[in-house]
Amino acid sequence: MNTPLTPLDLIRRGLNIYPDKTAVIQPGGPSFTYRQWGGRIYQLARAVQAAGFAGRHVAVLSPNTHGGLLTYSAVPWAGSVLVPLNTRLTGEEYAFQLRHAEVKLLLVDETLHARVEQAALDLGIEVWVLGEGEAGAAFEARLAAQDDAPLPLPVTDEDATLTINFTSGTTSSPKGVMLTHRNCFLNAIETIYYFKADQDSVYLHTLPDFHANGWGGVWSPFGVGATHVTLPAVRADAAYDAIETYGVTHLCAAPTVLSMLTNPEQARTLTRPVRVATAGSPPHARTIADMNALGFHVTQVYGLTEVSPLVTVAELSAAQEALPTTERAPLIAKQGFEMILAGEVDVMDEHLTPTPHDGTTLGEIMVRGNLVMKGYYRNPDATAKALEGGWFHTGDVAVTYPDGRIEIKDRNKDVIISGGENISSVEIEGILYAHPAVREAVVVAMPDDKWGEVPCAFIALHGGKEAGPDELSAHVRAHLAGFKVPKHYEFRDDLPKTASGKFQKFILRNEVWQGQDRKVN
Amino acid sequence: MNTPLTPLDLIRRGLNIYPDKTAVIQPGGPSFTYRQWGGRIYQLARAVQAAGFAGRHVAVLSPNTHGGLLTYSAVPWAGSVLVPLNTRLTGEEYAFQLRHAEVKLLLVDETLHARVEQAALDLGIEVWVLGEGEAGAAFEARLAAQDDAPLPLPVTDEDATLTINFTSGTTSSPKGVMLTHRNCFLNAIETIYYFKADQDSVYLHTLPDFHANGWGGVWSPFGVGATHVTLPAVRADAAYDAIETYGVTHLCAAPTVLSMLTNPEQARTLTRPVRVATAGSPPHARTIADMNALGFHVTQVYGLTEVSPLVTVAELSAAQEALPTTERAPLIAKQGFEMILAGEVDVMDEHLTPTPHDGTTLGEIMVRGNLVMKGYYRNPDATAKALEGGWFHTGDVAVTYPDGRIEIKDRNKDVIISGGENISSVEIEGILYAHPAVREAVVVAMPDDKWGEVPCAFIALHGGKEAGPDELSAHVRAHLAGFKVPKHYEFRDDLPKTASGKFQKFILRNEVWQGQDRKVN
Repeated sequence: MNTPLTPLDLIRRGLNIYPDKTAVIQPGGPSFTYRQWGGRIYQLARAVQAAGFAGRHVAVLSPNTHGGLLTYSAVPWAGSVLVPLNTRLTGEEYAFQLRHAEVKLLLVDETLHARVEQAALDLGIEVWVLGEGEAGAAFEARLAAQDDAPLPLPVTDEDATLTINFTSGTTSSPKGVMLTHRNCFLNAIETIYYFKADQDSVYLHTLPDFHANGWGGVWSPFGVGATHVTLPAVRADAAYDAIETYGVTHLCAAPTVLSMLTNPEQARTLTRPVRVATAGSPPHARTIADMNALGFHVTQVYGLTEVSPLVTVAELSAAQEALPTTERAPLIAKQGFEMILAGEVDVMDEHLTPTPHDGTTLGEIMVRGNLVMKGYYRNPDATAKALEGGWFHTGDVAVTYPDGRIEIKDRNKDVIISGGENISSVEIEGILYAHPAVREAVVVAMPDDKWGEVPCAFIALHGGKEAGPDELSAHVRAHLAGFKVPKHYEFRDDLPKTASGKFQKFILRNEVWQGQDRKVN
Repeated sequence: MNTPLTPLDLIRRGLNIYPDKTAVIQPGGPSFTYRQWGGRIYQLARAVQAAGFAGRHVAVLSPNTHGGLLTYSAVPWAGSVLVPLNTRLTGEEYAFQLRHAEVKLLLVDETLHARVEQAALDLGIEVWVLGEGEAGAAFEARLAAQDDAPLPLPVTDEDATLTINFTSGTTSSPKGVMLTHRNCFLNAIETIYYFKADQDSVYLHTLPDFHANGWGGVWSPFGVGATHVTLPAVRADAAYDAIETYGVTHLCAAPTVLSMLTNPEQARTLTRPVRVATAGSPPHARTIADMNALGFHVTQVYGLTEVSPLVTVAELSAAQEALPTTERAPLIAKQGFEMILAGEVDVMDEHLTPTPHDGTTLGEIMVRGNLVMKGYYRNPDATAKALEGGWFHTGDVAVTYPDGRIEIKDRNKDVIISGGENISSVEIEGILYAHPAVREAVVVAMPDDKWGEVPCAFIALHGGKEAGPDELSAHVRAHLAGFKVPKHYEFRDDLPKTASGKFQKFILRNEVWQGQDRKVN
């Protein structure tokens, strides 16, 4: 007897079994029992329906607040598709995503409202403001006007789209990744298993919820009756305060955040161990050692939005866990093995033949199975290309070791991962070309101690024109999110090209990555 | 991108990631690495195909040997449906099940061959004998004749039948429960989570593998790279020897086996903790306390073959785990909460309305969702009845407490659970009626210290005829498995009936269960 696999069933279970447990706490803000949280889900779902947005696309733009978290359950419960937006974009970027995803209603935190107001107005999108202020009070009134009695699960098709998450990918326009209920359910179950989450878990939202739905963390803790601690601004002191105050047991974060937590000026030794999953770039051995010394247990996972997102884990046996940090850290630093619900994850050559497990032969990480997205919204060409041959092409270049562990050595030349955010070099290049002085522009990833990688721009100017780094950065910042602005510029007379006139990006990348044993950081 | 949910994908993952780990050990027998085990799976799958049984129904009759365990992966890998048979039945019972399930090939352990030989002959079923002896050598030769190279996963439809498991249920004829790949996959994932199984786990097969596929234990440990220890004969000394020798971390068993392990003459204190899942009947507080004292960590789970089989768990919070045994045992003794992949589990009245959570109102445990069987093989009427109103009717009568825990108080009056085996009272009654001296026969469950419950027969004889307990028992034994033979007889002139002549079984059950606070043991 099949019933749809959906993360909403995890919410249903949590509400049903743990009504008196604390579901959500926002430090310095309100907290909610599962019963209260359920009431809010049903109220917001009814409000969305009452306003005529059932079955429509509803975007959310919010830091990690309780209000933002609520939308991940309530909007799908209204029968609508959720479109989570990155909190660090420009009005121009928001306009593109809202239009492309055909959003009809936007739920926006009051702190971000100004950035998206014009775009929403231009597109005729209804806006509801979340927050603690006056606007937030209107939202609360909107909820209070609705019945808080349970609504039945709205899902009839587990392959229906649950969320559309934008990813930078390799092209100039962000792509809307359609994740299904089945995708997100299986990812959530997988994380519950690897995280050893249960009703005693307290999950701190240090990872932005809009990042592939917080790697599933916007749903999974509810399934086991755990407590969510929302954290609107990720600062070391706020994170440590929350860990101590609420007995946090789990968190997820990009290595940049781990570096912040291990910063000697802010680091605190934990009184209880905390499990940490990290992804986005491989954590440095030093960071792992520092985290361990403070009482964090770090596991590296790997994935992409297109695979729901987690597909490998740097799993260690008990014997490997007992090794000294110096021997253990290199194992944790690899991306590891396919996770139990990931389907098949393999490193393959261009003919889809697995590469030998020799630790040296490069291939591309490919994924096949139930975590792979339904496709890119309104982009059948990109979908077909990404899923060519029946495998999802990650663009990440890796080796497989004799013990089966996968390690990323390089990635698609057009992707830069900076502080956990994916950046498309092609998108930045497009903006640079719009500057009247720029004749040629190539952007590549450059290793950076703080951010992992940052964009580096190689520029050839038009004859007789001048433009320095500051002017070009101001130009990019006018169109794109700040984290996409090149941190370094190299000016050349000409950029290297093939005989047919194609840029030889790899030559410029090699220049920047000289002396590194791999081209990811 | 959907790929079929199937336990075979867990096998694939294990073979792929842990080739050099030990997959299976049989104490005093061979052991196999994952690579070797994979080779044997592919060889047996090819042998089944080569003999023309791909897509057909293949039965297995075996104690918990490595050969028996192999069939749970290899037969489905041949594209065939596996029919696991109870090892304790008579030739007559085997004949019924083999015929009803349309079995074409039987894999039988040499120790059980004699019992089923005639039935297989009569039905024209091909027989392959497993074992260590001469017959076993022929089986090994059959494997060796086949290529051990990987075969692709054969599953194209996750809703296809994976196994047909016979259950006694409430009618005179056993019913063949069709479990799908999806059913068994989700059950396996669920047990991996609740068991906290991983690559360091060592799983001892104390539970008969034919019991609902060993609660999924014939597949799930492979998914995480754990080691299986097969145990053909479950005796306390053999179990303790295996636990010590192989570092067993997990086992499953009916409370009867727990009582055996805690028998002071045989009990041993563990040097490492072992997780135990128990089901079949609620464990007694004393048994739990004794198990804890020896170093076992006991969790009660609940289920039935028809629900793949596990749907509730007596989950305890960390605070509850820390309680003294006297306060903890009553919590473990309840069936607990719906498991995370169980779908919905609720106690309901006859109108499918949930009963109040007051700890006193009786209702029937109902299950809806992805663990519920596809149906009974060739029995649409029984299927429709069992799934009436869209819920699977367990026949177990329970209350729900204010904290949401479910506790079974009674069960369908026609089911007796003895030493973990389900027995149909109706089936025994049918045999008793075939005795020339018997005029009326009603069989009910009777509490028993060793077996939990045993069948008790109320008999009214024909006038002028005589038959005592020994004669009736010999009669039943000639037709049915020994564990189904009534252990107690009550002779009456007449048995209580309604005005319309229907037996009032409840009156006889009440007699037998007088003074007990619930009618399950």
